[in-house]
Amino acid sequence: MTAELSTVRAQATGADVLLRTAAGRGVSVCFANPGTTEMPLVTALDRTPGLRAVLGLHENVCTGAADGYARITGHAALTLLHLGPGLANGLANLHNARRAGSPVVNVVGDHMSWHRSFDAPLTSDIAALARTVGAHHEICDPAAIAATTRFAIDEAERNGGVSTLVVPADFQQRAAPEPPAGQPARDVPRRRVDTDAVERVAREVRAAAGPVILILGGDGLSRAAQHAAGRIAAATGAVLYSETFPARAERGGGLPPVDRLPYFPEAAVQVLRPASAVVLAGAREPVAYFGYEGLPSRLARAETVHRLAGPGEDAEQALVMLAELIGASEPHGSGEAPPPEPDPGAALTGQSAGAALARWLPEHAVVSIEGGTCGYPFFTASAAAPAHTVLTNTGGAIGQGLPAALGAAIAAPERPVIAIQSDGSGLYTAQALWTMARESADVVVLIAANRAYNVLRTELSRHADAEAEAGPQALRLTSLDDPAMDWVSLARGFGVPARNAATAGELRDAFASALRARGPHLIQMEI
Amino acid sequence: MTAELSTVRAQATGADVLLRTAAGRGVSVCFANPGTTEMPLVTALDRTPGLRAVLGLHENVCTGAADGYARITGHAALTLLHLGPGLANGLANLHNARRAGSPVVNVVGDHMSWHRSFDAPLTSDIAALARTVGAHHEICDPAAIAATTRFAIDEAERNGGVSTLVVPADFQQRAAPEPPAGQPARDVPRRRVDTDAVERVAREVRAAAGPVILILGGDGLSRAAQHAAGRIAAATGAVLYSETFPARAERGGGLPPVDRLPYFPEAAVQVLRPASAVVLAGAREPVAYFGYEGLPSRLARAETVHRLAGPGEDAEQALVMLAELIGASEPHGSGEAPPPEPDPGAALTGQSAGAALARWLPEHAVVSIEGGTCGYPFFTASAAAPAHTVLTNTGGAIGQGLPAALGAAIAAPERPVIAIQSDGSGLYTAQALWTMARESADVVVLIAANRAYNVLRTELSRHADAEAEAGPQALRLTSLDDPAMDWVSLARGFGVPARNAATAGELRDAFASALRARGPHLIQMEI
Repeated sequence: MTAELSTVRAQATGADVLLRTAAGRGVSVCFANPGTTEMPLVTALDRTPGLRAVLGLHENVCTGAADGYARITGHAALTLLHLGPGLANGLANLHNARRAGSPVVNVVGDHMSWHRSFDAPLTSDIAALARTVGAHHEICDPAAIAATTRFAIDEAERNGGVSTLVVPADFQQRAAPEPPAGQPARDVPRRRVDTDAVERVAREVRAAAGPVILILGGDGLSRAAQHAAGRIAAATGAVLYSETFPARAERGGGLPPVDRLPYFPEAAVQVLRPASAVVLAGAREPVAYFGYEGLPSRLARAETVHRLAGPGEDAEQALVMLAELIGASEPHGSGEAPPPEPDPGAALTGQSAGAALARWLPEHAVVSIEGGTCGYPFFTASAAAPAHTVLTNTGGAIGQGLPAALGAAIAAPERPVIAIQSDGSGLYTAQALWTMARESADVVVLIAANRAYNVLRTELSRHADAEAEAGPQALRLTSLDDPAMDWVSLARGFGVPARNAATAGELRDAFASALRARGPHLIQMEI
Repeated sequence: MTAELSTVRAQATGADVLLRTAAGRGVSVCFANPGTTEMPLVTALDRTPGLRAVLGLHENVCTGAADGYARITGHAALTLLHLGPGLANGLANLHNARRAGSPVVNVVGDHMSWHRSFDAPLTSDIAALARTVGAHHEICDPAAIAATTRFAIDEAERNGGVSTLVVPADFQQRAAPEPPAGQPARDVPRRRVDTDAVERVAREVRAAAGPVILILGGDGLSRAAQHAAGRIAAATGAVLYSETFPARAERGGGLPPVDRLPYFPEAAVQVLRPASAVVLAGAREPVAYFGYEGLPSRLARAETVHRLAGPGEDAEQALVMLAELIGASEPHGSGEAPPPEPDPGAALTGQSAGAALARWLPEHAVVSIEGGTCGYPFFTASAAAPAHTVLTNTGGAIGQGLPAALGAAIAAPERPVIAIQSDGSGLYTAQALWTMARESADVVVLIAANRAYNVLRTELSRHADAEAEAGPQALRLTSLDDPAMDWVSLARGFGVPARNAATAGELRDAFASALRARGPHLIQMEI
């Protein structure tokens, strides 16, 4: 064994081949939380030019950051995770990445192949976990590492999804054949446009007897797509909505007014049911987020729904073609007035803080929104803001906002990143703050500190079967006071400078100074 | 629908029936992190006498606390988790619970049964996730709720394992038949003793030409079991070890000397290979924690291994019977001297802090150990401490120590709970501190702050295939400085009083004052 290993050292190891193949496909970041079974990959990172490792203190930070990175760049990052429990810890944000259609490639180390059948303590069913969020590939032969790695990356980028590559430690460690020289560079094929669908939708829109609604999602929320949608709206009177939780939406800078489809089904039904045509441009057919007795799952009337472009298709191009077919020429400006400057002495509410942040937003910001307290008011008000990009929680697994902001900051170091984060969900992955500090990521984290799972308070009051009054245990399960969390102290523990803001004036000053400084800053907004 | 619902309110709902059935089986605690699809269960908690809800800010806090609770009480607690992502977030500590043989019953809400096929954002494969850690049961009919709940609880307690009960929101909300009156109380059957195995082992031990080793695990680490093992050792010269990572080990108070089987396979092989007989008393056959090229997976010679009692059997009774058969009568006292009082001005090391904590340990403490820096030295030194109970990380999914300490404190409020916690693993589930504060749990948390993933540093240096020197990325991926975490600030953010200790004298004072005070306290030990 020793003789074999000493020859191995002169050659590329399986770990080298895996990482070089990834770098050869253009992958440049690895969000990592490794363990013993990933050590050959960890040491190979230093032998792989162009691949930067970023440590997360919890796997869900790594997977959420890879999702945020993919939404900004359109390309996959690697995650490096430790066995089944490491993958399990990252599944929640992989679920969100799957819903976002983000390419993410997980590299999961496994026990030495010859050690797996002994059921050592960390052994578990990695494949079953991986398959709940996407594709699963297992390396069973060092000769297959290059091709399987390339396949997993291309598959994730082509399909917009999660691929997991499981690599036993011995195959990382042993010699493996180099990837073939002169591999074609990564080239994600242009997504397809269904021209028949475009023509069909053009006829339906022209023929519609009543209101027309366009729901934009995926590529349908690019700037070009929204401009085209604005022209269609100007020509036809159609009303524009985005998906309720877009993976990435361009906003502001003169784009036409686009609000998010309402979250609660009563309100969504009120919007959608009167329509004669509901056109899906990169969005899925709208369904209720949760089922409620007496309310439908499908929010629009089935016979009014028309698919211009599905989530896997080129919605931007389809909208441009539809605008041409309809003959729309003059785009609508947003026409929205920015929200007024708030009274500096006024106490903060979710509404006032969200609107004020939209007013003060710097140009070209990336805004990661998680939670409704400030998130909804911000989105509504930000139509009048400078051009910016919004990321939201696509899959509902909370703890996504801070990691996504981290990933966006790694992807676009030249852009300011703002995380508008509710406190309850922020506590799931607060460890992301530490990585922001280590990487000097320019992220301003704004915590909406209302100290409750407010959405659950709303659900308690909606809950048709509940007693008139929620009991003490129910209230306690939806409250985050007793003790009140102190995010200022928490952030400092993670190495992030932080301050509190109780009034609009304090928030304005704190926000301005955080934007001027380098590295992450946290502001706890007392809501 | 409205008429049906209004009649439902007068009757028990499915949620009521589920919780009453659990309470009827003696379940008294529910570690909860609920969402919208669990609201009927949340409101029903206030209608279920005897069932206490404890909120965790992350699901892995809930599942780890349920594991700690089960190790102390021998009985299952419920967890209440939200859909697939909620279960996914709790899987790591369920993996540890499975390895510990702890009964844990997860109650996971699902979408309304009629809403599931619409693939709303939070929809995922809950069953696949659940099956990676144990049994999975799905409620498909309100009439089945009582029986299925009873089955899941009894199964978890009888088998020592994890059961997951998935309950769609509509079946929680609708009327369901009450559990039959006069259910037999929960009665976990006495585990079985294989008397043939006891007789066979007695013959082997008597006939052994060379050293005999007893490896104690499970019930084989009770006080009575260790006293019996001590008598066997006195009569035969056998050497006693515990599993490397016992779920629960009684320690101190005059028990015979029992060390943990070494973690690294070289050291374990040195212990085990010379033995003529290796007797397993509640322990599994020892295998390497990780595989290493050139080292075996099976640590003992196969022909020397004899099973006195498997992990599912009554190892305590088997050891008592074996001691009788062998004719051993006089138990060995520990004979170990307590470690000396350290110089108050001395800087702390992992070794000195671990030994000092063993010296200062109060009687009847529960000690939750995660991480080796102080954990190994503490365990070695604690043989001479007053009687106490040690819990360790059984499955290697890190982030187990603080939740387990929380669960132990809920299970045994009359006992002091000490968490000896390495910093890297503690960061996975630091949110447990908040629940300790809310529940005024008497836990003293001792953080071994060496600011590195030290075990990975060791692995890097062991890693046969690495370059002579680890590169900058490898070092950065195993380091927790830059920035240095400040656990004092972090703990205060979660509402837990905290202080720093850099010397043995500071540690002694801080530990003594934390033990005197009520509620949780954290001490950051500068190692």
